[in-house]
This record gives sequence, C-alpha cells and structure tokens, in this order.
Amino acid sequence: MAVRVGVNGYGTIGKRIAAAVARIEGLELVGVVKRSPDYAALQALARGIPVYAPDEDSLQAFEKAGVKVAGTLGELLDRVDVIVDATPGGVGAKYKPIYEERGVKAIFQGGEKAEVAEASFSSLCNYEEGIGKRSLRVVSCNTTGLLRAICTLNKAFGVEKVRATLIRRAADPKEIKRGPVNSIVLNPPRLPSHHALDVKAVLPWLDIWTAAVVVPTTLMHVHHLTVILRREASRSEVLEALREAPRIMLVSSEATGIKSTAQLVEAARESRPRYDIPELVVFEDTVHVEGRELVFFQAVHQESIVVPENIDAIKAMTGLERDPEKAIRETDSVLGVTKSLW
Amino acid sequence: MAVRVGVNGYGTIGKRIAAAVARIEGLELVGVVKRSPDYAALQALARGIPVYAPDEDSLQAFEKAGVKVAGTLGELLDRVDVIVDATPGGVGAKYKPIYEERGVKAIFQGGEKAEVAEASFSSLCNYEEGIGKRSLRVVSCNTTGLLRAICTLNKAFGVEKVRATLIRRAADPKEIKRGPVNSIVLNPPRLPSHHALDVKAVLPWLDIWTAAVVVPTTLMHVHHLTVILRREASRSEVLEALREAPRIMLVSSEATGIKSTAQLVEAARESRPRYDIPELVVFEDTVHVEGRELVFFQAVHQESIVVPENIDAIKAMTGLERDPEKAIRETDSVLGVTKSLW
Repeated sequence: MAVRVGVNGYGTIGKRIAAAVARIEGLELVGVVKRSPDYAALQALARGIPVYAPDEDSLQAFEKAGVKVAGTLGELLDRVDVIVDATPGGVGAKYKPIYEERGVKAIFQGGEKAEVAEASFSSLCNYEEGIGKRSLRVVSCNTTGLLRAICTLNKAFGVEKVRATLIRRAADPKEIKRGPVNSIVLNPPRLPSHHALDVKAVLPWLDIWTAAVVVPTTLMHVHHLTVILRREASRSEVLEALREAPRIMLVSSEATGIKSTAQLVEAARESRPRYDIPELVVFEDTVHVEGRELVFFQAVHQESIVVPENIDAIKAMTGLERDPEKAIRETDSVLGVTKSLW
Repeated sequence: MAVRVGVNGYGTIGKRIAAAVARIEGLELVGVVKRSPDYAALQALARGIPVYAPDEDSLQAFEKAGVKVAGTLGELLDRVDVIVDATPGGVGAKYKPIYEERGVKAIFQGGEKAEVAEASFSSLCNYEEGIGKRSLRVVSCNTTGLLRAICTLNKAFGVEKVRATLIRRAADPKEIKRGPVNSIVLNPPRLPSHHALDVKAVLPWLDIWTAAVVVPTTLMHVHHLTVILRREASRSEVLEALREAPRIMLVSSEATGIKSTAQLVEAARESRPRYDIPELVVFEDTVHVEGRELVFFQAVHQESIVVPENIDAIKAMTGLERDPEKAIRETDSVLGVTKSLW
C-alpha cells in the first residue's frame, strides 16, 4: 500500500514537492493545501491535484471564487500518513501541534528552527538518522548546498574546517515585494550567519564559520568555500570525489562558457521543467587545492535544491527505503537529477 | 612654487582627482583632458577648470560644438610637472611613452598592469617607496580597500594570511551599458582573482588568496575578509587599531541601523559631495576574533576611495611631503576624510 502524502503550502517549494511526490513509486499525493484561489490553485486543479483549504474562512473564499476545493487541512490530515509542511518560514511550527494531534508524520522546511523536529535532515549526511522518525526538518537551500559539498568531501578526505561566504539571491522570481533592488545587504550584520549553526544541526562536530550578504538577483545563490581537509588531496582527487557524488554537478566555465547564474539558468531553460536545477553546481575551474586547503565556488538553485531531500525524508521516516544509497539513486532517477544540463 | 598637475581623463576617477588637486595647498590644477564635449566638459568649464582635448580630431569636435578648449594633451604636458592618468583601464599604458617623452612624472590607476610604473602605491602601506619616483601606479579601488585594512592590521598585530571574498558592484551609477542586471557572475571563473596579485604588488611577502563575483548593484563593493594575525588579539584591540587608523570608518549596524551599501550611501547623500565615501567602511558588528583568526565585512566606495591615495602619490613623487603620516593627515583634512558620515 502506498504511503499517502499531503503537502501543506503550494508556494515555491510546495508545488515542486507535490509534483515530485506524484512521480515517486510507493507514494500517493492525496492533496495540497492552498490558502487562496489564485493561479497556482487553478494550475494544481488542472493537473488533477486535489486542493484543500487551511481553514473554514479560506474554504469559503474558494467556494465564492467558484474554485473546487476538496476540504480543509483537518480533512486532509485524516487521509494521509505524512504531511510535508511547505508553509512560510516560522509558520510550520504553529501547525506542528495539529499534525501531532492527528498522529501524522511531519516534514518541515529549513525556515523553521531546528527544534521543530526530531532531527535536521540532509540525505548525503544523515539519511539513516531519519529512519523511523515522527518528524524531520529538511535544512534550507543554502544549508543543503553546503552539506552536499561538505559531506562528500568529508567522506573522501575528512573535513576539519569550513569557512564560507554566501552571496544570496534577494527574492524568488515570482516575488514582487522583496529586495534589495540596488544594494549589497549584510544578512545578518553580525557573524556568523545562521547557516553555520544550521550545518552544525546536522554535523555538530564541524568547525564551520559562515558569512552572508543578500544581492539584487532572483536566480540562484552563490557560495565561496574554503575547506581545510584532514589529509592532503590533489585537485584531480577532489574533482573525482565531487564528480562521483550524487546531486553535485561540475560545470567547467572554460568548456561551456558558463560563468554565472544567468547562464546556468539559460541552459536549464532548454532542458529542465521550470528551469529547475536541484543539483548543487560546483564551478570546476574554480576548484583549487594547496596542501589541505581547498577553495571553490558553488551555486544553489534555491527553488528546487531541497526537493530530492524532501522525497528522501519521506522514504526514510516511513521506512519505505532503509538503504541511503538506493533511496538517493532512485529519487534522482525518477526526478531527473542527472548531473548534466544537456 | 606650486607643483603643476594635469589630469588625463575626466570620468568617474578623473573628475574627483581634479577637484581634489584644486583644493590642496602646494598643487595647481593646470587642466584636464576630456575626449568629447559632453555634460562633464561643460561642468569642468563652469567650474573654471581648463579643458584640453586628447588630439586634433577631438579638438575639432570641441570647436564644432562651440565648447571652449585650452589646447591638446601635448600642450598640457608642456605646462605640468605631474600628469595623473585617469583614462580607462589599459589605455594609460598607451600614453606612457608620451608622458616619458615630455619628461613629465606620471601617476597611473589600478586598471593598468603593475609594470606600467616604477612602483604600485598605497599610502598606508608604502608611502616612502613613492618618494622621488618618476611614475607610480595607485592600486585599484578594491585593492586600496584591502590594503588599508591589511596594512593597519599588520602594523598592529602582524598579518600572516588573508582570505577574502569580494562582492563587486556591476557598474558605476552613470554607466548604462554594463551588467549584469540579474545574475551573480564569477569574476574571474578561476581562482585566485587578480586582487590577490595586486595586493602582492605592494606586499610581496603576504600569503593572500582572493575570489570575486560581480552582482547587480552600482553603489559599493563589499568584501568579506578572513585574516590570520601573527599574534592573538582581542576584539577590542582590533577595533581600536581600526578606529585609530586613517581612512577607515567603523560603522555599527546596531547603533546606526546601517547594514547595507544602500544605507551607507543614503547617509552620505546628506553629508558628502556626490555622496563620496573615500573612507574604507568596516562593519563594526561583524568584527569577530577567535585566537589569531579575525573575520569582518568591509565596504568600498569604488568611485572615490582612491582619490586621497592619488593626492598622496603626487606629494610623494614630487617630494612635496616626505613624512607619510603628515602627508596623509593633511590630505584627509583638506578633502574632508573625517571617518564619520554625520
């Protein structure tokens, strides 16, 4: 019998998780929760996805707009085994008691505090830790990007220390009220940024320090990492480890002409639905090693990078798949995480 | 008798250097070279600055436009002791033989290669090296920002190693053909960026590594620095060293609400001509020290930061002032480099 899954929230992340759940064998997408009867609700219905309202007020707004709605969140919770919370940051914590009360397993996103769930989750780092849990928190897009690189390097060489500068996108493409439009903003104006703490929620032993700014762009985040490895490694060993790891895509600027997030997205528009790039992109030509010190740039597609990890989290907590490598491989195969844009 | 100075190029940097030269006792602004009779030429004339054309063709364009011109570059060179080259990057090298032929001392900007001049110059690091030189190159805005911080820290604690991530503005406010508009661009898509080499042109002994991206903003650059000091220092010692150094302005986000380049510029619009901020801005609340490791964010106003260094370079090479501290103090006093925006 399939694991029945609901998705609370049908924004940037929720719509992608719902689409992914619908494609995975062994999972059944029961419905999504949407607050207002807007274009995204109409698109969900057009694709045959049952839409639920969060409460009675919202339900009436749907009915008034003549948009078909399958019930309220409460009814959805009665019909699912797992709810993926994709509500705005901080809102998930408010829903937590409702999920618990209904005895539904819950997955939260990185916008929530680590305490919201039994464990913070990142497939390449701690899949096993998720097995059987009643609640998991998939770390944020930036943290997922950092952890994919760090856990891959740690497996191959050991990682002693990480220093990272995060250059964050200001808003998602659909957002019309966020900025900055013409500024570089310290985010936060203290150090470290919360990303270091978020990485440590998964890797508590790691010496990591992060700093972040927000800049006027919508496409992707970019990270500059300095990593002190536990043993000396050659550049080709590092590239090999990154090339072999799942969900990491090496892109050579010299070979492809791609040296920016705009060019990555332009390539993805030809080959990917919604131009999603769930892979972590490592700019190959920036990878440089001296002794145990490794530096490189990587890019994170904030809208889609956490989608495979959310699917894995469902698999782990429900016991649908207990083997991390198999879970990851199958998720990637179905979702088209191919490590190439052509 | 005053040192007679000409400025070749009246763009972003040239217009500021010319205005500064005109204010310094012991210097006489003989004229500026401008290629076309546009609004900037009209403004120079309105301020009583003689305008020269680079060549006969350009001279005719001025005459045709009815804009008064004092002669050609050749004639200006006959009338000056020092020419400050503020032509676009790489163009200065083409003028170099002309300056040499006329026996005029020349100052180049950071857009030229280090080989263009006898020495690369940054007041807080190597003022003495400039004394008596026939040619100097004032390093670029980003490198000037890095060097002010590094030489201040080196003087106080010794600096062993620097790792810096540069988040560069895409274009100056007046530029209408540069980008990116919506992208983060690796610049360059290899490591290190040229800034490390440029710092080493002044401090050849330093272990420094830099990486840079360009982002869609016009106001200022932002740098994130990780510095390994030669001895342990407390946070308050570091702040004290930065506070006491010339041309470095500490800004506390908590005390002022300023946590971005946009807010710095908004404050400068109230208190500074053209909203220039020739000081290096260090975000005080981001200064963090653990053992010998120091991290912080700093901001660089690309249009004006090199102006005081250009004035100092004239003073050094002509022997107008041989004492670095006195030269810097007097330059700052006249130009209003006050370390505060209120």
